[in-house]
Amino acid sequence: MNLDSLVHSTGEWLKGAGPDADVVVSSRIRLARNLAGFPFTSRASPAQKAEVESILRDTVGRLRDSAGLQYIAVHALEPLDCQFLVERQLISREHAQGRGPRGVAIDADERQSLMINEEDHLRLQILRSGLCLEEAWNDADHLDDLVEQHVTYAFSEEFGYLTACPTNVGTGLRASVMMHLPGLVMVGQIDKVFRALQKLNLTVRGLYGEGTRASGDFYQISNQVTLGKSEDDILRELRAVIPEIVQYERSARTAILEQKRDHLHDRIARAVGTLRSARMMTSEETIEYLSAVRLGVCLGLVEGLTIQTVNQLFLTVQPAHLQKIHGRALDGDDRNIVRANYLRARLSEISNN
Amino acid sequence: MNLDSLVHSTGEWLKGAGPDADVVVSSRIRLARNLAGFPFTSRASPAQKAEVESILRDTVGRLRDSAGLQYIAVHALEPLDCQFLVERQLISREHAQGRGPRGVAIDADERQSLMINEEDHLRLQILRSGLCLEEAWNDADHLDDLVEQHVTYAFSEEFGYLTACPTNVGTGLRASVMMHLPGLVMVGQIDKVFRALQKLNLTVRGLYGEGTRASGDFYQISNQVTLGKSEDDILRELRAVIPEIVQYERSARTAILEQKRDHLHDRIARAVGTLRSARMMTSEETIEYLSAVRLGVCLGLVEGLTIQTVNQLFLTVQPAHLQKIHGRALDGDDRNIVRANYLRARLSEISNN
Repeated sequence: MNLDSLVHSTGEWLKGAGPDADVVVSSRIRLARNLAGFPFTSRASPAQKAEVESILRDTVGRLRDSAGLQYIAVHALEPLDCQFLVERQLISREHAQGRGPRGVAIDADERQSLMINEEDHLRLQILRSGLCLEEAWNDADHLDDLVEQHVTYAFSEEFGYLTACPTNVGTGLRASVMMHLPGLVMVGQIDKVFRALQKLNLTVRGLYGEGTRASGDFYQISNQVTLGKSEDDILRELRAVIPEIVQYERSARTAILEQKRDHLHDRIARAVGTLRSARMMTSEETIEYLSAVRLGVCLGLVEGLTIQTVNQLFLTVQPAHLQKIHGRALDGDDRNIVRANYLRARLSEISNN
Repeated sequence: MNLDSLVHSTGEWLKGAGPDADVVVSSRIRLARNLAGFPFTSRASPAQKAEVESILRDTVGRLRDSAGLQYIAVHALEPLDCQFLVERQLISREHAQGRGPRGVAIDADERQSLMINEEDHLRLQILRSGLCLEEAWNDADHLDDLVEQHVTYAFSEEFGYLTACPTNVGTGLRASVMMHLPGLVMVGQIDKVFRALQKLNLTVRGLYGEGTRASGDFYQISNQVTLGKSEDDILRELRAVIPEIVQYERSARTAILEQKRDHLHDRIARAVGTLRSARMMTSEETIEYLSAVRLGVCLGLVEGLTIQTVNQLFLTVQPAHLQKIHGRALDGDDRNIVRANYLRARLSEISNN
């Protein structure tokens, strides 16, 4: 698979088209699975890892027609391409930095991704735009069934699916939604929401997963416990709370619009003005400004931009994407100059409402 | 005189047309004079103050043809109009806030201003664009002569001209230049320059005179000592040092252009972008951004703007000017909104180079 073909495409989950897309960027289901009869990846010998990779690559090959999957040998990729896949959320940072035979299979619209020889032998992921946990779960369940027709999973009657890390044992399911919550941040309610989520055993993380700072007011909310709960329990918990947060966020936005409209409009307009003018932009500040622009688009304060375009910009201003678009490796200041040039070009047509 | 006619005019000193206008905004000569036979303003009775005002108003009236002066009774002005004259540097803040009969006479191009019953009975001021101390001194000397044909100044053979504050005794002369020194600020050399100036008995103050913080990298440099020196001595001291500072500033700008061009361009472009986008702007941040824009115009990094227009904007975004342009009194947030609207409209035509 030629990664360059992905550079200018928009993964399904970035379309900004799903339900509640003003607040929920994407829904994600991840299943952790391991093959019976093999040690976990971290304990496997090079030969065992190679065998696991071979079996699962083969399985993926058989699903080419039914699931439209294509295989990418991650161990053979340049670091830039690895980084590129991380930015697209198709592989994890850990998988990019791993060692030995490993890969990922994805479909054309980047809805499905199957990491092979990550922490677990197999990590199945479904990503969808907007609040779509149910649909994503159905997709994941179906894909899981397809895979299981060809391999035998490590499964215990007592514990459920066995995984490398005990936190994933049981269903192996992690369900998460990526939310954009600038309103709750602005009205100072975000910490209150987090405390409530913690009490429900839900985890909140930043834009790029575990251990990353929440940047651009993006928060990934997911289940913490997989053991002793059914898949339905896990999904039900999230589905009970996420729509509430969506409503809180919308109420916060409305309140700001009513009470502080000029200040909000100013902040958004300045973000647009800076993105359209700057000659150097770091990745971090771009995310902050784009966050304001995304809010502006949702509230009708910015014209000539769609959520899809903003979502796409979040992706394409990341270092690896930028370098692939530009056609060569770029360091420090050069990257910030190219990023600013790219943003000016992409945003020249829009206007503040 | 109708102040409203001044709102859209540009005082001579703002033309940005004089020598070294890239660094020196304006040159200013001020002479402190008092009438013989009257106590200083702070010691005068209401009747005496009224008499001084009457005599000097009369004198100014006689100079209508020769010096083109028009008289404004400051005590009869609304606070907004007083503030307006302060912003145009035609009267001092102290004069605006003073009590009792007092006035100012100015000419059509705002080059000459004569404050009556300020700290001294008469304060003559000449303002010129760019580095023009010699010409400004000649104008002031001439105007001083014209006034002296009609009144008798308080003068001592031993001390020279007598003034209310001992720091002005002698020549009564304060010569100053308003310099724009963003380059020296950026390369971190500005404090070194100030220390050198202090050793030469020169004073450095901010944009709006005594006690004000230097905002927008504008610095007013003037002589400290008036006693025991001739007018020529005072002017010679300033004329020796100012061109050196001009050269330092230009060297700093060149060095930044060579070593940090991208960063400089970015800073200037963002300033333009923010001024053209913001929906609310305080006076202070406007000055900071306009300072960057002024530098950009001088260095050819901003197109479609002249130094004159930027100089004028520094003036028209001040609170009183803004309210006169808008046609009504404005408070807090409203003023910041009107200021941002005004800036967007005025800057819509320019582009980053």
